Parts: sequence; structure tokens; C-alpha cells
Amino acid sequence: MARAWHLISRPEAMPTAENFALHDNPLPDMGPEMVHVRNLFLSVDPYMRGRMNEAKSYIPPFALNAPMEGGAIGQVVESTAEGLKPGDLVVHMAGWRDEAVLPAKAVHKAPPIPGAEPQAFLGVLGMPGATAYFGLLDVAEAREGDRVFVSAAAGAVGSAAVQIAKARGMTVIGSAGGRKKCQFVASLGADATVDYTAGPIMAALREAAPDGIDVYFDNVGGDHLDAAFARARLNARFALCGMIGGYNSREPMAFRYIIRIIAMRITVRGFLYGDYTSRLPEFYADAGALFAADKLKSHETIADGLESMPDAFLGLFRGTNTGKMLVRV
Amino acid sequence: MARAWHLISRPEAMPTAENFALHDNPLPDMGPEMVHVRNLFLSVDPYMRGRMNEAKSYIPPFALNAPMEGGAIGQVVESTAEGLKPGDLVVHMAGWRDEAVLPAKAVHKAPPIPGAEPQAFLGVLGMPGATAYFGLLDVAEAREGDRVFVSAAAGAVGSAAVQIAKARGMTVIGSAGGRKKCQFVASLGADATVDYTAGPIMAALREAAPDGIDVYFDNVGGDHLDAAFARARLNARFALCGMIGGYNSREPMAFRYIIRIIAMRITVRGFLYGDYTSRLPEFYADAGALFAADKLKSHETIADGLESMPDAFLGLFRGTNTGKMLVRV
Repeated sequence: MARAWHLISRPEAMPTAENFALHDNPLPDMGPEMVHVRNLFLSVDPYMRGRMNEAKSYIPPFALNAPMEGGAIGQVVESTAEGLKPGDLVVHMAGWRDEAVLPAKAVHKAPPIPGAEPQAFLGVLGMPGATAYFGLLDVAEAREGDRVFVSAAAGAVGSAAVQIAKARGMTVIGSAGGRKKCQFVASLGADATVDYTAGPIMAALREAAPDGIDVYFDNVGGDHLDAAFARARLNARFALCGMIGGYNSREPMAFRYIIRIIAMRITVRGFLYGDYTSRLPEFYADAGALFAADKLKSHETIADGLESMPDAFLGLFRGTNTGKMLVRV
Repeated sequence: MARAWHLISRPEAMPTAENFALHDNPLPDMGPEMVHVRNLFLSVDPYMRGRMNEAKSYIPPFALNAPMEGGAIGQVVESTAEGLKPGDLVVHMAGWRDEAVLPAKAVHKAPPIPGAEPQAFLGVLGMPGATAYFGLLDVAEAREGDRVFVSAAAGAVGSAAVQIAKARGMTVIGSAGGRKKCQFVASLGADATVDYTAGPIMAALREAAPDGIDVYFDNVGGDHLDAAFARARLNARFALCGMIGGYNSREPMAFRYIIRIIAMRITVRGFLYGDYTSRLPEFYADAGALFAADKLKSHETIADGLESMPDAFLGLFRGTNTGKMLVRV
């Protein structure tokens, strides 16, 4: 019997294991133009926290007591759809479960990028990679020679942003929590790293970026964003991608340097991956070339078994992952 | 003997009369290509507060114990410069004083806008008007049909922004401090007004803009900015022009809704009047036409006598002005 995780109660602040329950998940019959998919890897993403709230956001909240959703990559085991045959690798949104029967239009084949393992299409060659790519190059208009600050640089999106920025000739400062993660960020090519667990990010960034920053790729919000305001050079561009620091908190964020937006003519823009799905071919072409040239590598933290899904998710907020957080089904 | 105000000490937080002293100001001899100007009106602007700090900003700090600077309009009484003759009205930066002898290149003739009184060139047809014009139309890309929120809408920049937005077919919500000022903002054509002294701006804006806002023209920062984040519609654009609420404070500003920048894809941009001086002819043409059509009117609060300059300046932070704050020399 197939199984799926349900959200059984809405977390008030930090979620706990008690918010989730694993249930049998009877699969619907196969109709025409459908596929039966056995999942190989499930994506574990910070944005999922938002869907656990009742409030309407850019995507609808998770329903209570129903299979949860999220990115996943699986193998087709049965198909009544043209162009999809058993063995095909497909990316889709029926994550948090081991198997799914889906309309063919709800899945898309993994792009043909030689040498890429399946899980890369949930990471550096998937949603987080594309988020980094368009956030950096389109939203923040980062160009060769720019000084780029990336927060949560050891995470899925951050680690992709660091690699893309380096491949495009930028100077990169990456922040991460702890010495080991900072070493990982340095191994990605970052010119400087900032360990935000070692002291105030404000002072650390001042030291790591004595000449300031032209671009900030924000995954964190809070003190990181304030430090970026403090260090911004004239006409700096900030791409706001996430604020993991604020997802579980109802406290306001305090900013001492936001007033510098005016004098430094900073442009701050928010964006979502979903704004760029029509431009994915562009991403696959560019990222595929970087991947082939070994300039964009996949880095993952993998938890084993469907059972581990909630714990892997909660781990995002404890910073247990380096690179993309995944569950191997 | 000519006289000028000196800054004699730097204010820590809110400035007081003790920071200023009025001194005799011996004028230099007239050399070639110079003008002797007798000031008619002195501009009193919130941005001057920044120049009283020692810290470097987008303009250098005021020197201590020297004549202060600021916008002014005066009449030429003597000239050795081609194209400038006694009686000409000129705008320049030798404010905070009654007379000045200046290089001809440091002044420019008031543009020929029929019906405009001299003081209008320090207000709706001068720096504050151009700030409103370019901030609204260029920085925030406000267009016909947009719902526009303007803070400090009874001030020099805000009152110009309200009028320009209405002339361009936008819906305008203006905030101001007190019932009388709100009536003034309504008289400018605003569709709704918000009195921020009557209760939290957050709730008041929710009521005044039930469908949210597309554009925010910010002169205030703080709670106003947070309320604008809370009410922003998809793809909203914010032009940050000033944060008068933060000029005299060292406290950080707290934001509960800044995270909405992401989901609503808000663009926040800072700008300064100085970025647009090369495009002033465009402003004079458009604003002149609006002025001739009675769609852009000059509104001033005038204090009399050079002696009143510091008090007029301090009044900006008590909200004593409606429209442009000026001193008549």
C-alpha cells in the first residue's frame, strides 16, 4: 500500500513531529493520459513552512488531513500517456509520498543533462538552481565584476548562487552557520565566508566585504538583510528570495540601516521561482553547460526513507543540511 | 552687514535652537563672472538634518562655524556675468543667509513659468516638485489607474506627489498628521486620507485602501513603510524618498510585513533629487503645463525674517508646515 504524509495540525511557530502523520494512500485507478510514478527522491524546502499556515499566500495552504505536496523525482512504472513510458524520470509536485498516480500534464521529464543523477533535478538543476540563476542574473542583475553577498550560502539555493556567481566572474562572499559549512562554501569557490554563528553578522560582513557589496542574494532576512543594507554600495541590487529567519516567528524584524536604501539608491526586489518557469529552457541550457564544465556541482544532504521526511524538514530550521536537503524513498 | 546662520554644534538626536547661531557674514568682492544676490525666500527641508551629522552621506556634512547652505531664491542686485542682470530671479544653494556673492555658475535663472511667484521655485516648481515628479513617475513607474499611497502628503514633496498623481489619473491615498492637514490633502484631490495621529497607521491604511496599493511614495519610513508592505498588491513599486521619522532617532525601525516583498514581488527603490537634475527641463515643461492648467498649485507655510530660520527648520519635525516650508527674508 502506498503511503503519504498528512499535515494533521497547523504549527503556531516552529513545527514539530506532532504536526505530521504518515497514512496509507490508496492510489486512484489509471485513466487515460495518466502515469503511475514511483518516487526516488523527495524535495525538502523551506518554503513549505509557509504552506503549513492557514493564511493565503502565493500558493494555497496545505489542506489538513490530506496528502502533502512538494517537489519529487520518480520513475514511471505505468503510463497511458503518449511520450511517457516506464523507466522515464519525471519531476512533479506529488512529494511527501512514495508513489503517485497523476495526470501526465502534472509531470515533466527530467531534461537531458549528461552525467546528472536523478536527485540533481531537485537541486542544482531544478527549482533551487533556477531560483539562484534567475534571482542572481535577472532580479539582481548581477554582472561580471560585481561583489555579491549570498546568505545561507551552504543551502540549496545559496550554494547554487555561489557557484553561478563565480562562473560569471563575480566576487562572492557567502554566509553560513558554523565553521564546517563555511569551509563547504569556500570549496564552492567563494572568495570570503562569514560564519554567522561566531558573532554579529554586521561586524563580520564589514570585515569580509571592506569595499561593500553590489548585490545581495537574500535567503535569510533579519540581521543579514540589515548588514547588507549597511554594506551596500551605490546602486546596489538586492534579490529577496527567502527569509528563513522569519518563517517561524511572529516577531517583527528590526533594521538600523534600511534608511541607506535612499542615499545608496538601493533596489530591493522580491521574486519567486514560479515567475520564471517559462524561462526554464534558458536555465537548463546555461546550467547544463556549467554542469558539464564542472563549474556547477550538485551537493546534497540525504535522509533515508519516507519515514524521515518530517525530521528532514525540521532539520532545515536547525541547519542540518549542506546543499540540497532530500529524502531518498 | 549681511548675515548667515552657522551650525555651531552637531545635534545628537533632535536639534535645538542652541545648535545654531546667526553671525555677520562679510561678502567677498565681486570678481569676473560673479553675481551679488539678495535672497527673497529660503528653503527649509528635512534632508538638511542629515547634513548636521558628522557622518559622510550623499552630500557632505555642514561645516561647523561657517555659513550653512540650502536652497534659496533671490534677486540679482549686481552682476559681472553675461546673461545675468540686476532684477533677475535666480535659484541657488546659498540659503540660511540674506545675501550672497556667488560665481555665476552656482546660480540658475528661475524657469519662465507664467503666473508663478518666486517662492514656487523652491516648492512645487522646484526641488520638492521635481522630487515628487521623478519619484512617482520614474522610480515607482506609477501609471494611470494605479492606487498610490503618499505619506507626509501635506508636506512639500508629498503635496506635489498627490497633485501629480491625480493629474495623471491615479487613485490617491494620502497620510498626514491631524484633521486639518488631512483636509488640506483632500483639497489637493486625494481620494482618501489617513490621519496618522488618530491611531495606528496599519489599521487606518487597511480601511482607506481596502483593495491594497500599487505604489507607495515614502517620505516617512517606520510604521508607514510597514503598513505599505502589509497593503502592497502584486508587483507593487515603492519609491523611498525620505524617512523623516528616522532622522533624529538612533532606534532601529521594526517591520512585521517586510517579508511580503517576496510573495508580492515588491520593488523598493531609493532615490535622490540629485539623480534627476539633468532631466529638469522635462519636469519644467510638464509641471509648467500642469501649473498653467491649475492642476498643480503652490502651497506654502511661510515664516518671516532670517531670524526665524532655525525655528522653521525645527518645525518640520513638529509638523508645523502645510505644503512647502519657507522663510521670507
